[in-house]
Amino acid sequence: MKTYLECVPCFFKQALEAARLSGADEKTQKKIMDKVALSVPSFELTSSPPEMARIIHGVVKKLTKKKDPYARIKEKSNRLALKARPDLKKKVARSKDNLLTAIELAIAGNIIDYGVKNSINVKKELEKILRDEDKIIRTEKKTIFNYNAFKRALKKAKTVLYLADNAGEVVFDAILIEEIKKNAPDKKIIYAVKEKPIINDALEKDARVAGIDKYADIVSSGSDAPGTIISLCSKRFLKTFKKADIVISKGQGNFEALSNVKRSIFFLFMAKCPVIAKDVNCKVGDIILTRKK
Amino acid sequence: MKTYLECVPCFFKQALEAARLSGADEKTQKKIMDKVALSVPSFELTSSPPEMARIIHGVVKKLTKKKDPYARIKEKSNRLALKARPDLKKKVARSKDNLLTAIELAIAGNIIDYGVKNSINVKKELEKILRDEDKIIRTEKKTIFNYNAFKRALKKAKTVLYLADNAGEVVFDAILIEEIKKNAPDKKIIYAVKEKPIINDALEKDARVAGIDKYADIVSSGSDAPGTIISLCSKRFLKTFKKADIVISKGQGNFEALSNVKRSIFFLFMAKCPVIAKDVNCKVGDIILTRKK
Repeated sequence: MKTYLECVPCFFKQALEAARLSGADEKTQKKIMDKVALSVPSFELTSSPPEMARIIHGVVKKLTKKKDPYARIKEKSNRLALKARPDLKKKVARSKDNLLTAIELAIAGNIIDYGVKNSINVKKELEKILRDEDKIIRTEKKTIFNYNAFKRALKKAKTVLYLADNAGEVVFDAILIEEIKKNAPDKKIIYAVKEKPIINDALEKDARVAGIDKYADIVSSGSDAPGTIISLCSKRFLKTFKKADIVISKGQGNFEALSNVKRSIFFLFMAKCPVIAKDVNCKVGDIILTRKK
Repeated sequence: MKTYLECVPCFFKQALEAARLSGADEKTQKKIMDKVALSVPSFELTSSPPEMARIIHGVVKKLTKKKDPYARIKEKSNRLALKARPDLKKKVARSKDNLLTAIELAIAGNIIDYGVKNSINVKKELEKILRDEDKIIRTEKKTIFNYNAFKRALKKAKTVLYLADNAGEVVFDAILIEEIKKNAPDKKIIYAVKEKPIINDALEKDARVAGIDKYADIVSSGSDAPGTIISLCSKRFLKTFKKADIVISKGQGNFEALSNVKRSIFFLFMAKCPVIAKDVNCKVGDIILTRKK
């Protein structure tokens, strides 16, 4: 997905949030905003938003010397999601179609995103998911939801590459991956996280905390962009990306980075801002399961 | 009020909205955003938001060569507010305290603001006011509301300087001014509008459309800033500003520009963004009547 001019204000919001989380004083915050501002003219709108976000968060890291401003937020998200896990698993087990419910919940868990939503209340969002307040399970939020195509492709696939999005959300991914493995224990699942801290994106340790290593090989994309930007990924990762029978891409950042890449990918995400909603032709808050070929 | 770093994203939103309203193509829109970005480092946080907004809208005007991008919006706001006028006047006439209701409505009318709120639906907002959906009349939205002090100061005053805010809103101001004149026909009222187009701020012709010239002298602040920035006002206006027995300042922009000025001013506005809500210690959406000395 290209970057829209509407993304520019959001870049500044992100920079400010990250600066404050890094403990920067007001003077440093201003310096960061100025530096981000000076980089705006060099932004090409043909690039995807995660490419810009990477540059912006790079500015914050450089000026604050804090490598992982979202560390505590990530830990808290994991902890809260793990606490909700038994109830989430019950929801899956009690449903008519366990795989479908696990998918729906995995997409609902995509709400834990500090890139798009600033300062979300993870606890409240988890409670909403458990009570299904947003009616995700009850289908009203699905304008684009190609479940049957996904199920067919998944059934045929021997190797599954699952691109992670955020901490906290990893717990939801673990439930979906467990569900996939339950039906097909021989399927090889590879779970790809980010190489280095970026916003609240999941790293290897987050995947391990969620217990994903029990069901999948955890690999890194080789990059610290908040989305799988092919030109920044490691050769090793790209080999896996090319060879996998099915790619499951979680989150808005991965969609933004990969929507124009030439290979079949299933995108699972919640449309969290008006820009992406316009791009995929849905409403803000919709949960999306779509294949791009 | 100083400019907060949270205002920066909003400046870009404003620039983009104004660029689009001016009919700029995407290339020009990008040029405008770049130019605004390059001016960010020169922004002093000690300046007030309207000072920045003036610079930003200046960039848009220069690059699009459109002097009044909000012209149609202002006309529509006036037309819709005039249509609602009979019902608004009935609301005042039927209330227990006519002056209080006219004040409450005048502040409610401050919602018609394209500086803070992008692309508001004026028709819907007017309907909400008429049905009192936002409970403005029912006092829940008043954390800071010094009505008694205002009433006392107004009673004593021989000359009233009323600083206008936006088109559309002028109709609400007209109702309040009519109410003031009804109780005290000898009071001299001066209604100050902006000298040149800026966002959807009221100009002399908007005040005339609302019929304010029947009850007040219409003057100009001498400036095209979206708030009464003293250093940019004409000498003539400043004389009036100094001499008036009471200054009634409408809107967020005027508050932002004048809150640190040394003279007694009554500020009537709706707190429309988290930054101003934090600054005056209220909630977003609250209606405020406050005196700064």
